[in-house]
Order: sequence, then C-alpha cells, then structure tokens
Amino acid sequence: MHIRIINPNTTASMTATIGEAAQRVAAPGTRISATQPEHGPVSIEGHFDEAVSAVGVAETVLAGEREGGIDAYVIACFGDPGLAAARELTRAPVIGIAEAAFHVATMIATRFSVVTTLARTGIIAEHLLQSYGFAHHCRRVRAAEVPVLDLERDPDAAVQRIVEECLRAKAEDGIGAIVLGCGGMAHMRAQISETVGLPVVEGVTAAVKLAEGLVGLGLQTSKHGDLDFPRPKPFIGRYAHLGT
Amino acid sequence: MHIRIINPNTTASMTATIGEAAQRVAAPGTRISATQPEHGPVSIEGHFDEAVSAVGVAETVLAGEREGGIDAYVIACFGDPGLAAARELTRAPVIGIAEAAFHVATMIATRFSVVTTLARTGIIAEHLLQSYGFAHHCRRVRAAEVPVLDLERDPDAAVQRIVEECLRAKAEDGIGAIVLGCGGMAHMRAQISETVGLPVVEGVTAAVKLAEGLVGLGLQTSKHGDLDFPRPKPFIGRYAHLGT
Amino acid sequence: MHIRIINPNTTASMTATIGEAAQRVAAPGTRISATQPEHGPVSIEGHFDEAVSAVGVAETVLAGEREGGIDAYVIACFGDPGLAAARELTRAPVIGIAEAAFHVATMIATRFSVVTTLARTGIIAEHLLQSYGFAHHCRRVRAAEVPVLDLERDPDAAVQRIVEECLRAKAEDGIGAIVLGCGGMAHMRAQISETVGLPVVEGVTAAVKLAEGLVGLGLQTSKHGDLDFPRPKPFIGRYAHLGT
Amino acid sequence: MHIRIINPNTTASMTATIGEAAQRVAAPGTRISATQPEHGPVSIEGHFDEAVSAVGVAETVLAGEREGGIDAYVIACFGDPGLAAARELTRAPVIGIAEAAFHVATMIATRFSVVTTLARTGIIAEHLLQSYGFAHHCRRVRAAEVPVLDLERDPDAAVQRIVEECLRAKAEDGIGAIVLGCGGMAHMRAQISETVGLPVVEGVTAAVKLAEGLVGLGLQTSKHGDLDFPRPKPFIGRYAHLGT
Amino acid sequence: MHIRIINPNTTASMTATIGEAAQRVAAPGTRISATQPEHGPVSIEGHFDEAVSAVGVAETVLAGEREGGIDAYVIACFGDPGLAAARELTRAPVIGIAEAAFHVATMIATRFSVVTTLARTGIIAEHLLQSYGFAHHCRRVRAAEVPVLDLERDPDAAVQRIVEECLRAKAEDGIGAIVLGCGGMAHMRAQISETVGLPVVEGVTAAVKLAEGLVGLGLQTSKHGDLDFPRPKPFIGRYAHLGT
Amino acid sequence: MHIRIINPNTTASMTATIGEAAQRVAAPGTRISATQPEHGPVSIEGHFDEAVSAVGVAETVLAGEREGGIDAYVIACFGDPGLAAARELTRAPVIGIAEAAFHVATMIATRFSVVTTLARTGIIAEHLLQSYGFAHHCRRVRAAEVPVLDLERDPDAAVQRIVEECLRAKAEDGIGAIVLGCGGMAHMRAQISETVGLPVVEGVTAAVKLAEGLVGLGLQTSKHGDLDFPRPKPFIGRYAHLGT
Repeated sequence: MHIRIINPNTTASMTATIGEAAQRVAAPGTRISATQPEHGPVSIEGHFDEAVSAVGVAETVLAGEREGGIDAYVIACFGDPGLAAARELTRAPVIGIAEAAFHVATMIATRFSVVTTLARTGIIAEHLLQSYGFAHHCRRVRAAEVPVLDLERDPDAAVQRIVEECLRAKAEDGIGAIVLGCGGMAHMRAQISETVGLPVVEGVTAAVKLAEGLVGLGLQTSKHGDLDFPRPKPFIGRYAHLGT
Repeated sequence: MHIRIINPNTTASMTATIGEAAQRVAAPGTRISATQPEHGPVSIEGHFDEAVSAVGVAETVLAGEREGGIDAYVIACFGDPGLAAARELTRAPVIGIAEAAFHVATMIATRFSVVTTLARTGIIAEHLLQSYGFAHHCRRVRAAEVPVLDLERDPDAAVQRIVEECLRAKAEDGIGAIVLGCGGMAHMRAQISETVGLPVVEGVTAAVKLAEGLVGLGLQTSKHGDLDFPRPKPFIGRYAHLGT
Repeated sequence: MHIRIINPNTTASMTATIGEAAQRVAAPGTRISATQPEHGPVSIEGHFDEAVSAVGVAETVLAGEREGGIDAYVIACFGDPGLAAARELTRAPVIGIAEAAFHVATMIATRFSVVTTLARTGIIAEHLLQSYGFAHHCRRVRAAEVPVLDLERDPDAAVQRIVEECLRAKAEDGIGAIVLGCGGMAHMRAQISETVGLPVVEGVTAAVKLAEGLVGLGLQTSKHGDLDFPRPKPFIGRYAHLGT
Repeated sequence: MHIRIINPNTTASMTATIGEAAQRVAAPGTRISATQPEHGPVSIEGHFDEAVSAVGVAETVLAGEREGGIDAYVIACFGDPGLAAARELTRAPVIGIAEAAFHVATMIATRFSVVTTLARTGIIAEHLLQSYGFAHHCRRVRAAEVPVLDLERDPDAAVQRIVEECLRAKAEDGIGAIVLGCGGMAHMRAQISETVGLPVVEGVTAAVKLAEGLVGLGLQTSKHGDLDFPRPKPFIGRYAHLGT
Repeated sequence: MHIRIINPNTTASMTATIGEAAQRVAAPGTRISATQPEHGPVSIEGHFDEAVSAVGVAETVLAGEREGGIDAYVIACFGDPGLAAARELTRAPVIGIAEAAFHVATMIATRFSVVTTLARTGIIAEHLLQSYGFAHHCRRVRAAEVPVLDLERDPDAAVQRIVEECLRAKAEDGIGAIVLGCGGMAHMRAQISETVGLPVVEGVTAAVKLAEGLVGLGLQTSKHGDLDFPRPKPFIGRYAHLGT
Repeated sequence: MHIRIINPNTTASMTATIGEAAQRVAAPGTRISATQPEHGPVSIEGHFDEAVSAVGVAETVLAGEREGGIDAYVIACFGDPGLAAARELTRAPVIGIAEAAFHVATMIATRFSVVTTLARTGIIAEHLLQSYGFAHHCRRVRAAEVPVLDLERDPDAAVQRIVEECLRAKAEDGIGAIVLGCGGMAHMRAQISETVGLPVVEGVTAAVKLAEGLVGLGLQTSKHGDLDFPRPKPFIGRYAHLGT
C-alpha cells in the first residue's frame, strides 16, 4: 500500500518532517512518500495562502496519478486545502488532516479543543468544524501564536508555547482531548501529550491510519455525483496542462 | 493487535458471520475475536432491545478487560448501544459501527443515504446522525423492511430487498454512497456494492479499520472527564458484580 | 390518577425523598407511588451507571404494567435513562425529569442554566439539551461538584454548594431561571429558589405535573412507529423473562 | 385556580368554542374563563393579522391583571402572537398553544407533523418550530387549505379536509402523532384522532394542562431579565393608556 | 427613488436624527422621508414595546401606500418590529435595520459582535440572529446599558459607554467588526468607528443602501406565498379601518 | 465609484455578457469594468475548476489593486470561489454572487429555491447555504442540467430548461422567489422572472447593488483578524510574484 502525503506548502524541510511522522505510524506494509507542490507559499497562514496551495495540492495529486500506484492521498495542512478538488481527480481516497483529526478525536473523547498556530487561522478550523459537523464536539479553537515556520526555526520554544496553551485548554475547557491544528506539529505529538497529560490527536498521523483503513476496506472516492472526475474542458494560460 | 468484536445481540450465528466479515478486512497482524453477551435479546430492533443490549455490551467489555490483551473493542450493532458506557470501562478505544460507517462515508462521498432493516429502527440512526453531527451529510434514512434475523434466515431475499432500496436511493437521493444500517449486513457489502454500482460502507468492517488505526496511533479513550472509569459504588441485586 | 415515579437508582431512601417531593405537588386526585429497580447502581453518575439503570427502569415499567392501573410513569434521574425504551413498553405516557425540567423552564424564562451534581455528568445534560432541541435556551451547564449520595449524607452542605453555583449562574449567565440537574435535589427546590432569588425548576416535580396534564388530555404514547410495543422475540440468560 | 384563555382573534363564537374545549379538559378545581380582544381581526391568517392581534393579547392580559385573581394565561392562536410581550405584563405563567402542542407532542411521539389551516400560515409554524427548538421533531407542516372561519361555518367539511390531510401525513411522513395547527380546531381533536387512528395533539387543551401544571408547581414568569415588567415610559396616541 | 424610513417609536426627535443619518448615506437620486407611528411607545426596550410598535409600523406602511410613490420602507428599530407584517402590506421592499446590519457585517468581516443598549433587549437580537441564520457569525451580543432615550438626552455619555463596550468586544471577542444594536445610534457610527478602530456597521444606514439596491434591481416583495397581501376580513374596534 | 466584476472563468464572451448585465443595474455614477483571469478553466462546473479559478480571482484582485481606483470587487461565479482569499488582498469590499443572491432573496421572500446549471455543482450551493447560514431559508437546490457554456451556445434552449425547472420549483417547493445559480444567467433574469411569474434573484446584479451600498456606506473589508492582508512570505515557482 502506497500513501502519498502532500504537504501543501513548499517548504521541503517541513515535508520531510511530516513524512517522517507519517512513516512512524504507518503499518509494516505501508509505503509512505511525502511531497509538496512545485509552486506555492512556503507556509499557509490564511485564506490567500490556502487558495494558492489548493491548486498545488490538486496538481500534486495529478502528478501522483500519472506516476501511478498510489492508493491514497493525505493533504497535510490543517485547513484541508483543495480537498474536494483533489477528490475529483482520483479514485483513490483523499483525506485532509483536519477532518482526520476531528474524526479520531470524537472516538476517544466527548469534547476536545483545537490548539493551532495563529489566531487568524483559527477561523479556518472553525469553518471546517461547522462544515464537517463537528462544531458541537469542539469546545474552543485556541492559538499558541506561533507562526508556522517557527515550528521549524525554534521547535523548543514552539513546543513550550503549544504546551502552555494545551494546559490552559485542559484547565478551562472541560475537554478530554486536544487536537493539534497544524501539520507542522506532527512530530511533536508524543512530547506534547506526555507533558500535558491528555490524549493529543494530530492530523497527519491520524490521516495515515484512516487512509490505511479506507484502502484496506477497498473503498474509493465515489465517482457518482459531485466527486466524479472533472468535466472535460480547456484551461487557459499557465493552467493549459490541466485542461482536456 | 487484538480487536474484540462485540455483537450486542445474543445470536451466536450472527456473531460468527460478523466475526468473519471483520476478519476478512483485518490487517495481517490483527487478531479478531468475536463474542456476544451472555444475556440479552436475540436481535435488536428497537429502543428496548437496545437498552438491554447496552448492559450486555458493557459486561462483555468488562469480561474482555479481565481477560486482558485486548487493544480495541467494536460494538457491532448500528445503534451503537452502550458506546459511552463501554468507553468508561476500558482504556482501549471503543468504536460503534454506526459512527464508524458515518465517519468513513463522509471521506468518500459528499452525501450518503442509510439503508437499514426496519423503519422503526431508522429513528435510532436519525438520532445518532444528529448527535454525532452527520445529519447534513445524510440525505435519507431508508428501510428495506427486513427483520434482523431474516438476514440469516433468508439471505438471498434479504439482499434482494436491500439492493432494491439501495437502487431507489441511488436514483432519488442525489448521493455518492450508501451506508448499510445493520451489523448483520456485514458480509453482504461487496455483493450489494457491485450490484448497486455505488460505494457501500458497512460499519463492522469500517470499525475494524478505524480500531486498527487508533491502536496504531497509540491513542486510547480519554480518562480525563466523562469517559473516566466509573466512580466506585455498590450495585444491587443481579448487578452486584458490577459494583465496587 | 396513578403516577408511578421510578427512581432509576437503587437507593431506597432517595426514592422516598423523591416520592415525597412528587406527592407535595400532586393534584388532590393524583396517587403517587415511588419505586426503584431491584437491580442496579446506588447512584447514577456517569454513562455506565446510566446504561445499567436503563434496564432497571424498563423492568420497573414492566412490573407496573403487570400490576396495572398506572396512568403515567416518571423517570426520576436527570439523564432520562431508558426513556425511549420505557415508552415502548406501555401505552401510558412516560416522562423523563430532564425533559420535563427543560420544557417547563422555557415556559417561564427565555434563557436558563443547569446546575447539576458533578462535571462528569454535565455532558449527559448537554447531550439531552441537543437531542431534545433546547440547547439554545440553555446558557450553561454547571456542576456544584456534589456527589449524588452526598445530597442525602450532608444535605446542608449540598444545598450550600448548589446555592453558591446558582448564584454564580445568576450573576454571570444572563438567565431568568435555574434548572436543577438531579432528581435527588427535588426536595431542595423551594429553599434554593428562595435563597437564590430566581425561579428554580426541578424535574421530578415538573414531570409530575406534565404527567397529570397528559393523562388529563387522554393522550398516550403513540404506538404508531418507533414507540410501538417491542417486536416479539426471545431474550437469553438472565433476561429470558423479558422475551416473548 | 383560574386560567384565562385569550382567543387572539375577535370572533366571539370561536372564543366560546375554544373556552368549552378548554373547560372539557380542565381539572375539577380549575376555573376557565375565555375572552378575546376588543380590537383586532376576526381571524388570524398571516403576519399582519398576527401583529395586530398581539396588541390585543397584551391588552387582554393587562385587563386580566386589573381584574385580578388570574393564575395563568393561555394564548389560543397557533402563532403564539404576543407571547413574549404578554409574559412581561404579569407574574402569572403565559403559555402559547403552539408551544404547548409541540411540548406535548414530543412526549408521546418521536416525530410529528403539523396540520394547519392555510399554507400561508404554515410558515409561522415553521418559524416557531425553529425558534423553540422543535424543528427536528417535526417531519412536515401541512395545510388542509381551510380558512380559519370555515372551521365554524362548515365544520363537517372542515373536519373532512383536515382528516384527509392527517391521513396523508400518517401514510407519508413516518410520524407517531399529529399536531393540529389552529386554535379553532380545539373541539375537533377527539373526532379527528379517532378517525385518523393516531394520537392528535391540540394546543388549547395542551396549554390548559401545562398551565395547571405550572401553577401547581408555584412557578411564575421570571422577572429576572427580558421578561421583567416593561420599563416605565409614555405611550402616545391611542395607546396612551399603556404608558406609565 | 423614495425611501420611507419608519422610526417605530414615537419620539419625533429621534425620527429626525435617524432621518438625517439616512439622508447622509443616500444616493444623489434618493429621497429620504422619515416618519413615525402616531400611536405607540416613546422608545422600544422590550417585547411589549415592540409588539405595540409593530402595529404602528404596519399602519405607517399603509399610510405610505395611500400616499403613494414610495419605493421601499426601512424599519428603523433593531428588533425589526412588524417586519413580516409590513411586507404583506406593500409590493415595495421592506427592510429591517437588524437584518440589514447583519447582512452587511458578514460581507466585511468573518465574525462580529453586537453592541446594543440594554441587556434585556439583547435577547431580541439573539432571537433575530438565530431566526435569520446569522448566529454563528456573531460572537457575542453585548449591552452598553444605555437606555434608548439617553442616546438623545446625553449623547456624549452614551457614546462613551458604547465605545467602552466596543473596545471590550474588540479586545475579547476575536471579531472583525461591530454591529450597533439600536436605530438611535445611527448618527454615532463614524465617531464610534474611528475611536474604536474597527469597522462599525449600523442598521439604518445599511438598510438605506440595501433598499436602494433592491429598488435598483427592480425587485419587490414576493406576493407568492406568505408575504401576499392580507386575506380580506373585518377588523373590530379601534382597528376597524384595517379591515376590508 | 468603480466596481470591478471578476468573471472567475476565462471565457471572455461570458465576461462581456456578465459585464453588460452588471452595467444595466448600476447606478448612474457607477463605473463597471468586467474582467477575467488570464489563467484558468473556461467554465466552472465542479470543485477542481473552482479551486483553480480561486487563484485566478485572487490574482485579478491583485491586478486591480496595482491598477488602483477600484472601490469594490464582485466575484461572478455562484460558488464564490476565492472569496475569503480575495478579501485578504484589498481594503475594498469583495462580494460573491452566491452570497449576494442569498442576502437579497431573504429580503423579498421567506423561502426560496435555487435553480443552478448542473446537479454536480448543486452541492457547492448547498455548502455555501450552510456556511453562510441561509440553509433554512432555501427549500431546495435544483439543477436545470444545462452545462455552463451552453448558456451561451444555445441560450434559447437554456432559458427554456431553466424556466421549466423554475416552474417546477414554483409548483412544488412552497417558495416566494427563485435564485438563479450561475453567473452566466445574469442577462436572463428579467425574461425568466416574467415567464415564471415569481421574483427571480440573480447574483451578479445583486452583488453590484450590494457593492454600491457598501461603498456608499464607506465600509471596507475589516483588516482586524482573519481578513487582514496576508502575512508576508515567499512564494515558490510560478507563484513567486505573489510572495513578498
């Protein structure tokens, strides 16, 4: 089984970190390959970054389809950018890390809080919680106020701030679990969970296991309805290669 | 990894069928053991059956805990009877097949319909959809009007009626996938999916893979909050053994 | 008119207290009889306690039906354990004290808060508020952190802590009424209301009056649909007597 | 105990009919008095009729307060016109017949449909269902297309059309009970229920019993918050008597 | 284009202020005329005031229709009193200032808070937010605790308290904009916005521009369904002139 | 006042048609300029098309900002692609035509249905209705099964099919208005409305008037919170020009 992890931003070092975190939880028979778009922002911290990254995600899926042999895709940014678009492009299951984390969190706790990087991206998590139907399971979306790339630049400081916010959530929110709200926190999960003393759910690792599950079930993205392959049509300009 | 499948009704032949369906999707390293309560109804087709079965589920989890070595539990009845109670009794993840099917269905289709056994149990699915947050993903809860044990007594007739209802759902509901609404349909999934021409999600098999995923992540039921072990207290009468 | 109050836990002294509180508000022509399951936990403080008590509730209803002459049942635990199951077993109306309190509270105030015993049982009230449709009428579910049996062991201390929590709710929540979240608080209502200076709704007393109302209207539990009598079937083991 | 039934329209014959229906279900010790505004529309079949009637309701409550000795008020039009306003004007409980019917219906059936007079007033019922929180308990709001005063002019034809619509609801909606959506149907309930073969809930009768219940509990409209007596101020023109 | 601003209370000085604020934002070709009911409360600070004012609003619309040449109506009280009723009485669009403010706020910010006059009227804003569908866009409804007429009596003190509450909202609520919750604040918008440093949306001015827009589109209130002209019928007593 | 209409697809003839429709409703002082991305799909009929077009929308806004003098932007595709992203890039208000149509429809009718091009894009409208909060105002999302470019290729046939679907909506849905679900239908509104006999709301024209309104109010996109300008960062590859 081959799961392709797509880091929607273009920071290769983060792709590597995410890929390693994914590999660490993968089943023995699972091959993990992590990649990133050729084009796009170095981090995703708002609606605009996310919109651009969505095309990168889609193109990365198309590249995977040309390459062949990929059984499932994981979109490793907590806004799940390009999720529905990506699902149109392949029969393989495509899973976003935000949805993965929410699904998993509801199976181990009755209420959870999200701890994300920046307050301004918290709204994206709120939108997803509402859209997916998990809003009433989530007590609060909190921000550690750590810019995404600081997760790499100064990981110790980042972990400390995230832990502090998690501890506030534990004390104030009446929750049973924490959801980490950024793909770049994938490798910090164990450390944070241990320090905070609560189950901590992280989306990259959650999505890998959900992807293994879907593939194991032989389930593929439905091609009946809105997730069918895109209707054939020309694309203009720099996207001409995306048309048919 | 050892996953204990609990068939909440007391029909051993159905337990066997469910266990086989579970085994068929389990990963190589996963041991499946299927069991059922010693006490309870032979099928679950309403609120009262469900209430009694919930205690059976809880006791079966307690038996599993005494036995030891169980990594996750699956509650294999589409009403998820006793789910929250069972979660209090163990650190192992506990997954209901209704929630499992709903989680999985939303990852491969934007909208689904449920096809269950009897109209009178459809309300239980509706309650769960609302409570879990999946109501807006589900177009309709439909009933094939097949009593649960008829799934075993006359499986060919049962499959035919279920397929007919699935085809109506496909034609009328604007959906991308079907969710089968009874644990006793676990072994019929492939056949129904092929005949209907839509992805068909079934809860027992879905739950096995989600359970493998949670165990693979090292995640356990949160003991912080309402899923903590029950507060110690005496139980009276026939439940004296449940007290402390 | 004969209303049977079912205390779902097995603590006889609490049954007596609840029965007296019920009697105090009953109409002249109403006979109140209070009882409790023969089997089950001495208090209900979580999902597991509740699941076991639900069977006790159902069996107590069946006993009432054999006895005959009962016009309505009240389930006197704030989680409304076994409510839907009990409704299947009788034509008489069955009312849970949580639903009763919520219904009544919305008729005298635009917003209310719940003050319950323990934080871990607050989640059960939250689930009911959502399921019944009252979530937006309730500002907050609060816990006085008084274990259920301490309501009897040290009632003065219990009242004091409950009053303190009610006063916090009055000051902070922007509410017009308090709902007491435990059947064991039935006899404390007047005292709490007077001290707090807000209308206080309590479920046992509320349910008695709603039951009188339904009986007075000649309305019975619908036997059309999911509340119809259970489908006949064998039950196994210790529940053999529940089968047909 | 004295319950004042307010028929919000100005048709005295309908007031009498409603009053009789109310009296028929009242407890022995309950005195029913039915009245109507001096000013307003002869029937309420839309938003404008309702707005005017709301003032009539409020003035009728004020008249009741001057009269004294009234323990509860019932607003006997299915749009609950002036309900919140009326609650500001008295300490006595005030109950609308739509809310009463919805509360009661949820206690005897898991799902119900509303059968009202005209399609154009169905939207008012929809708004109330959403505002009160009962939307998910109601399958459908249906109209028999009988103008309100035709309930009096040709009751046999009216009953027949209502019964036909109820039978359609029974056959198509998957419900356990019917809610009649007009105060003018109060006296038809028994006949309709018998013919249709479903529990039928009617708001006037339901509200009388809820009012008896609230009074029996000693509960009054909260004067803490938005239902407190109106802030004192002048009213101009024809409403000068309403000012202070 | 002629837009009629209806101040639902009977304080002429407030009508003038509102009219001036409306005029200030009106397009060159737009004629603004502001008026008020002949009958009703001098301010609207609760459900009762609102109910009475709704009839005044309706009559003012009827007067406008007799007068002729009015292209749109604005109801300039934040509870949108009589909105649906008014829509029945004319083909011209009718816009409430609360809905107007909510619509506009969602177009410039992802989340907003409301700052209204008194806590007891905040509930009216909550009801509208829920009914219109904007509840999840609004973080919090706050009150400056300024009675409506104090906006005129001591405007400087009023502005100061409103600004203070807005600053609290800005600091605590995670919002992008403020909605002012009273028509009497129409002329204070610019000053408050500048001081607070956030976009401030005010309903009177918002409604004028929405009204211009609807008229510019040639859209009128639908007469298909519940907003059709009232069914003809007699009105009794002081409302005889409203009947047909 | 200068309003820039962005047709998110790259079909210039459709841009022209949309621009003309916009111009026809613009106020005398309003300058309309219509444009389209240089890069992207020729029509938008699914999630993938939409994701690519979102970047085109964002770049077109950036071009507008470089150009200067633009007071508001309208995104003229019914999925509102790139709406939040675009709002980050400018202080000018940005309005999507789906939100515009929903806002306007709720001001002239209590319930509406959407008639869009293809069933597979209907889900996008459903998502927006839920996310914006308008789901309960919309009875049904219907599809005329007309591909987007057929609106230009064979407009008469297209209008006929759209009218047929609108008439079905009028007959079956209990609505007061129709919302047209595609920017390419902008010029057909008057004809469809006249034939169908219902108010028909179309998003491009609606958005122009809302944009004029926001500009007239002096309101701009909030730069406090998630709609603030993007955090500065490098973009890689073909998007390098988007970085800072």
